Amino acid sequence: MIVVMKSGSTPEQVEHVVGLVRSMGLKEHVIVGTERTVVACIGDDRFKDKSRLELIEGVDRVVPILATYKMASSETKKGRTIIPLGGKLGATIGGTKVPVIAGPCSVEDREHLLEIAHAVKEAGAVGLRGGAFKPRTSPYAFQGLAEQGLKYLAEAREQTGLAIVTEVMSIEQIPLCVEYADVLQVGARNAQNYNLLAGLGHVHKPILLKRGMSSTLEEFLLAAEYILAGGNDQVILCERGIRTFELDYVRNTLPLAIVPELHRRSHLPVVVDPSHGTGKSHLVPDMCKAAVACGSDGLILEVHNDPEHAMTDGAQSLNLDQFRQMMASVKRVAAAVDREI
Amino acid sequence: MIVVMKSGSTPEQVEHVVGLVRSMGLKEHVIVGTERTVVACIGDDRFKDKSRLELIEGVDRVVPILATYKMASSETKKGRTIIPLGGKLGATIGGTKVPVIAGPCSVEDREHLLEIAHAVKEAGAVGLRGGAFKPRTSPYAFQGLAEQGLKYLAEAREQTGLAIVTEVMSIEQIPLCVEYADVLQVGARNAQNYNLLAGLGHVHKPILLKRGMSSTLEEFLLAAEYILAGGNDQVILCERGIRTFELDYVRNTLPLAIVPELHRRSHLPVVVDPSHGTGKSHLVPDMCKAAVACGSDGLILEVHNDPEHAMTDGAQSLNLDQFRQMMASVKRVAAAVDREI
Amino acid sequence: MIVVMKSGSTPEQVEHVVGLVRSMGLKEHVIVGTERTVVACIGDDRFKDKSRLELIEGVDRVVPILATYKMASSETKKGRTIIPLGGKLGATIGGTKVPVIAGPCSVEDREHLLEIAHAVKEAGAVGLRGGAFKPRTSPYAFQGLAEQGLKYLAEAREQTGLAIVTEVMSIEQIPLCVEYADVLQVGARNAQNYNLLAGLGHVHKPILLKRGMSSTLEEFLLAAEYILAGGNDQVILCERGIRTFELDYVRNTLPLAIVPELHRRSHLPVVVDPSHGTGKSHLVPDMCKAAVACGSDGLILEVHNDPEHAMTDGAQSLNLDQFRQMMASVKRVAAAVDREI
Amino acid sequence: MIVVMKSGSTPEQVEHVVGLVRSMGLKEHVIVGTERTVVACIGDDRFKDKSRLELIEGVDRVVPILATYKMASSETKKGRTIIPLGGKLGATIGGTKVPVIAGPCSVEDREHLLEIAHAVKEAGAVGLRGGAFKPRTSPYAFQGLAEQGLKYLAEAREQTGLAIVTEVMSIEQIPLCVEYADVLQVGARNAQNYNLLAGLGHVHKPILLKRGMSSTLEEFLLAAEYILAGGNDQVILCERGIRTFELDYVRNTLPLAIVPELHRRSHLPVVVDPSHGTGKSHLVPDMCKAAVACGSDGLILEVHNDPEHAMTDGAQSLNLDQFRQMMASVKRVAAAVDREI
Repeated sequence: MIVVMKSGSTPEQVEHVVGLVRSMGLKEHVIVGTERTVVACIGDDRFKDKSRLELIEGVDRVVPILATYKMASSETKKGRTIIPLGGKLGATIGGTKVPVIAGPCSVEDREHLLEIAHAVKEAGAVGLRGGAFKPRTSPYAFQGLAEQGLKYLAEAREQTGLAIVTEVMSIEQIPLCVEYADVLQVGARNAQNYNLLAGLGHVHKPILLKRGMSSTLEEFLLAAEYILAGGNDQVILCERGIRTFELDYVRNTLPLAIVPELHRRSHLPVVVDPSHGTGKSHLVPDMCKAAVACGSDGLILEVHNDPEHAMTDGAQSLNLDQFRQMMASVKRVAAAVDREI
Repeated sequence: MIVVMKSGSTPEQVEHVVGLVRSMGLKEHVIVGTERTVVACIGDDRFKDKSRLELIEGVDRVVPILATYKMASSETKKGRTIIPLGGKLGATIGGTKVPVIAGPCSVEDREHLLEIAHAVKEAGAVGLRGGAFKPRTSPYAFQGLAEQGLKYLAEAREQTGLAIVTEVMSIEQIPLCVEYADVLQVGARNAQNYNLLAGLGHVHKPILLKRGMSSTLEEFLLAAEYILAGGNDQVILCERGIRTFELDYVRNTLPLAIVPELHRRSHLPVVVDPSHGTGKSHLVPDMCKAAVACGSDGLILEVHNDPEHAMTDGAQSLNLDQFRQMMASVKRVAAAVDREI
Repeated sequence: MIVVMKSGSTPEQVEHVVGLVRSMGLKEHVIVGTERTVVACIGDDRFKDKSRLELIEGVDRVVPILATYKMASSETKKGRTIIPLGGKLGATIGGTKVPVIAGPCSVEDREHLLEIAHAVKEAGAVGLRGGAFKPRTSPYAFQGLAEQGLKYLAEAREQTGLAIVTEVMSIEQIPLCVEYADVLQVGARNAQNYNLLAGLGHVHKPILLKRGMSSTLEEFLLAAEYILAGGNDQVILCERGIRTFELDYVRNTLPLAIVPELHRRSHLPVVVDPSHGTGKSHLVPDMCKAAVACGSDGLILEVHNDPEHAMTDGAQSLNLDQFRQMMASVKRVAAAVDREI
Repeated sequence: MIVVMKSGSTPEQVEHVVGLVRSMGLKEHVIVGTERTVVACIGDDRFKDKSRLELIEGVDRVVPILATYKMASSETKKGRTIIPLGGKLGATIGGTKVPVIAGPCSVEDREHLLEIAHAVKEAGAVGLRGGAFKPRTSPYAFQGLAEQGLKYLAEAREQTGLAIVTEVMSIEQIPLCVEYADVLQVGARNAQNYNLLAGLGHVHKPILLKRGMSSTLEEFLLAAEYILAGGNDQVILCERGIRTFELDYVRNTLPLAIVPELHRRSHLPVVVDPSHGTGKSHLVPDMCKAAVACGSDGLILEVHNDPEHAMTDGAQSLNLDQFRQMMASVKRVAAAVDREI
């Protein structure tokens, strides 16, 4: 941490800062510059509340130096983390292969789900996504089939071998989701639901953690840290779009530069969700290509056999034909960056 | 809902739209314009997934007409909702009086809390805030005293009569919070934790609902709707700042225009939290004045007897002297807009 | 400037940084921390391109210390700047008085303008705003009356004594605007048009500088610095709303906390434009009150005698009655914070 | 345009709306819904100020239907626009080929510029970018070599055949830039400098128009429309990143989904600038790949032979080796989407 004094700060004010810094168990280093004094603080200040130093008369601001995540950091673990996805196809994420996870927004009924599962499997997907518990903005919207939905998903896995990815919305739902699914997803709206994250730290299945709609990169990695710190080292980071002033042609802005940046800062695998990342099915195939081109370790997207009649998120779902075409073109892009779908 | 066709859309495409609209139980009204055709749809489409109409060939976009919240709307309930805050001072929110709720970010220990409680009471506060369960961005940060913290809060109420406001982070914590506190707060990070919101619909205490960091006004009111729809009609809306590109001089941007707009659209009372809304204690007093000047029904803010040594959120806490001065100046502003602190 | 090395950086990398720092004419100070090394650099680095240090192998990031504006800073000039507005009423900005500048978005014709001018004068305004050159998002929209509009404005000043505030869009328009107007306004879209700003540095009239739609506080003050550095020390800072995800109930988000923060960092007067700051006339009066309550030195807003038929910006204009009522209520708020309208 | 009335609006209020609609030369169509009435308006309302209808008592909001750009729209011109870039290599943009334009942020001196020009040419670039006039946030920063810089650029074209792309900051600079350069660039800070845009409508050279830092897609296309409406049909749209809350690991957020969306809405070619789009050179190569993968018609980026000593924008410039490697990998991605660098 660096404490920057205001120009014109007094020696007494600097002393006051030094005292508080020492009381935090840190060692100070006072540097008198041409116009200002700064106090550099040595020692691990990751767990201290630094902000309060800003209250001291004469302090201009406090600049943190250490990143506050540790287990998620590539400084802590050098190689890349590779996570088996479950299912019966031996799929993993984090290596050269780029797994594709596809399926409907919500599990609506058995027939549709099985039809979709077989179709995405044939086109090259290795995972099936589908919501049994649905976080809906409106209390009046369809809230999901709950356990019945999970059973249909498990049946789809039996028939196809696809790994099952489903969202868990609260601690109470964890046991049920663990029983039926292979990968548990945390949605963007729960990205800072710390009780849920801490609960998932005790689970022995991979967690697909979506970035919050306005989470910074650091907050995103700290959310992962909650799960890692609990003992579960299988965290998959998922970029799904952020909220910006772009609300006319997309529902969210998909900031793909985070993909290579997460790879620099963390050893965890990164997937991209271009369905939520744009909210518009016509933009999904191009964003799939872009995501793979810049190094995404996987894709998760919404596919429906009849999007016009989907109960939820129809506008961002590919139909089966569109999915097949997307897969064909993304395979070529993957090869061009030495990856394989 | 209005379906806007692309220029050059064919009659078949319009027919397709009409068919889908009818299958949703709505009545259509086709209007052929100079350059485009639009299909106006009559009937209550609030619960339908309209987005999928955008998938139809020839459709440009779908414009929703009805707001999707109902119980929170001023169209449903005409007068303003007035909510008793609990405690022993007879405080209410939503009327002419502007209650001030103050206290530390976290309950740290008994002595500090009681000192703060007495001081804010004397300065004119009617509620005491304090976190027993703390949502912390980092898993390594102080997580709160849990039930012991709630007990200290209850003791402070005994001594001062102040209404106790505390954050509840998950469904499991509800019973404990209901037992000790008067008002349950939902934090910004849980603003779209729908399971928690639904759970709070069954509680018989007021809920202070913070706006999510990137929630739209409609999403904010829909979060309130989750609680109202469960049967709890005591919801207090709290603006606490949104996330924008302003990250240099503030931690959040405080968009005060939402105060009069919420009053237009909803009958629920609105409070402002200038501590989180700015993240900087030196900006808090002026934002308190601004909030009251534009009609806020209350204030909730962080006060600490020794902010330099606070365990959490020191930088945004007023000390006791600053709080007293703020109260004195805000009382004058309140009088200028015919309100009373 | 502080250069933060990555954990695990080598002594050679630190040496490389030191060499580059010295070649910039700065003195370095290497501090070896528990986990990282930082290089503090002493000397005035305001004019150097620091970003390139980030390219050196082993550097994590570069943290600037000095603010890059100087003449606009309250560190350079201690007292507040008070600027006479011109006109015949002796109005100034920056002192205890809070001048109100009102008028139509565009000058549309002589009769309307004079009617509005007399009405706002009677209600207590001291300045008349009105666009003769209009920056319009669409090339097909009304572009203003140009010099004829300026003549009408000057006539209105003759009749009422109001100071004339009008927008200048390019260097070529400066002489004409200087001839007719008292205060030249730079619009938000030109907030970083550096050629225009530099040109206004040579003008001997006050400049009302609007913040860019996505300018940071520092960029805003640096835009002012362009004018100040050219020799014109009469700059009035104007907050007019920023672009955020709030695009449903407002056109822009009005971040009022910038008002006290600008007062802390700069000696220049600050005005608020709640018309553009919200885009909705029904929100303007409450935002006027909030702006004055938190210390705004003035208000500039759109008023029209017949907003329903205004050629531009009708939706955000107050009519004459609304303006009078607003003035009456804002005067009370001003008195409550020891100011005077 | 659709005027949506509030629930509970009266027939008189609807009549008032109808009157105003007719006075705009439009034909109304009143639709009485279950809960609300809407007034659909037929006729070309593109040039009307619709916002003022929102002022009428009983109106909830006004929904525009027509896009306000026309010449830029793919509804007006069906095929794609192909623009020759100039220089001596016969390069064009908008077809199958993906031209790469590279060079230093600023022209610093003759030697550096020529070295860079030869190097990027050999690696496959067809255009040379370089600023002679520099828009700098600070008035104290290097402002460019002006005409001398343009001469160096022209000399580089002589030697290499590369097309010269340079920024024009004001109307006065147009003749000089036209004389020496092949493509005139409008920077993000001038993206809504309408006088400059209108001036460029009379130029007979291609204009590379950068999106403003917070421009919406519609505002971006309207800025293009200003140029097109003036008679210059050679406009290249350039995405260079937008301002969001992401300010920690990038300087701007690069929203690549706009590339396919611009292709849907407009016939104009689209290029991506990943240097400004991220602000960090280590992210540039991956963003180049992503941009080409999702259909970008070209790339423009900053390259320097010695970024550590660049006078401006060092942190986002590739060095010559990095540029060569990037070109090799992007060529493979281009081939995978049936394009060619």
